[in-house]
Amino acid sequence: MAKTRILAIDPGSRVTGFGIIDVANGRSVYVGSGCIRLPDQDLSVRLKHIFNNVSALLEEYQPNEFAIEEVFLAKNANSALKLGQARGAAIVAASLQDLYVHEYAARRVKQSVVGNGNADKTQVQMMIQLLLSLNAKPQADAADALAIALCHANTRTSGGLEYGVGKRAGRTSKRWTEQDVRKSV
Amino acid sequence: MAKTRILAIDPGSRVTGFGIIDVANGRSVYVGSGCIRLPDQDLSVRLKHIFNNVSALLEEYQPNEFAIEEVFLAKNANSALKLGQARGAAIVAASLQDLYVHEYAARRVKQSVVGNGNADKTQVQMMIQLLLSLNAKPQADAADALAIALCHANTRTSGGLEYGVGKRAGRTSKRWTEQDVRKSV
Repeated sequence: MAKTRILAIDPGSRVTGFGIIDVANGRSVYVGSGCIRLPDQDLSVRLKHIFNNVSALLEEYQPNEFAIEEVFLAKNANSALKLGQARGAAIVAASLQDLYVHEYAARRVKQSVVGNGNADKTQVQMMIQLLLSLNAKPQADAADALAIALCHANTRTSGGLEYGVGKRAGRTSKRWTEQDVRKSV
Repeated sequence: MAKTRILAIDPGSRVTGFGIIDVANGRSVYVGSGCIRLPDQDLSVRLKHIFNNVSALLEEYQPNEFAIEEVFLAKNANSALKLGQARGAAIVAASLQDLYVHEYAARRVKQSVVGNGNADKTQVQMMIQLLLSLNAKPQADAADALAIALCHANTRTSGGLEYGVGKRAGRTSKRWTEQDVRKSV
């Protein structure tokens, strides 16, 4: 069975977490994770920062599949608007690369990774460390993104989902330690 | 005084209106308007459609300034999320062209164009037809976008705003009738 590389994104109006895993023969292997911290500047500069950094991750890691957290019930209209703008910038970057965007509700992601749809952030971090054999707990937003990637890996392996196949062939993975993406855009 | 070309966008989760005007010596001249109708497809395809079509408008019309409706109070969280995603895709397109994004609240736009912050859509359409000497009422979303463009023109002319200057020099305008942008992306 060929290796599949998954990039998952957890967009936020201040920090966007990302996680990359490789899946082959039912096993998931950590490739990289981190977060894109948005500059304290105008909305348009922040959205360009998300778009450019997600585009750079797509270029660097050449994922075959892309997953993102689905938003069912946003807390309030203003936070939903900000979250929507961040999601829009991230999704456009993936869509321009002809990647199908898989969406998973937060509850389903937690159920898949922790076994409890109401798990808190610390539980998600601990399970991600355990499941991917990391030597430290990943940062919270990066852990959420890795959880989305694992949820997608589980769903596609169990055949519970019809999914679009990305346009790219797999590539040999490069080990990458967690990092904050702060480069200027 | 050099001519300034303004592209204004009124994003929505189904239809995104756009309007282009030229401003010189305090006079505003209609250049074009229309709407981008989103295909009934996946979110990522719809957002790519907005991004690609706004990018095409930027390429075609080479505006010096970009304006968009500011959202103060969205109706509810779910519509705010959808609106935010559409805004994110449109703003990224402008931001990648190094255009500063000017935002105006709907109330201020209506006040500026109709003289009444609570004006309805029909009143906006009628005033746009009158102010820009059009031979017919523009479509409602296109009229809203032209109203945002005129509001920005009035604000920048009256010196009530510090605005970023776009990177491009003005170009001779080409008369363009209102149209729906439906080309595939």
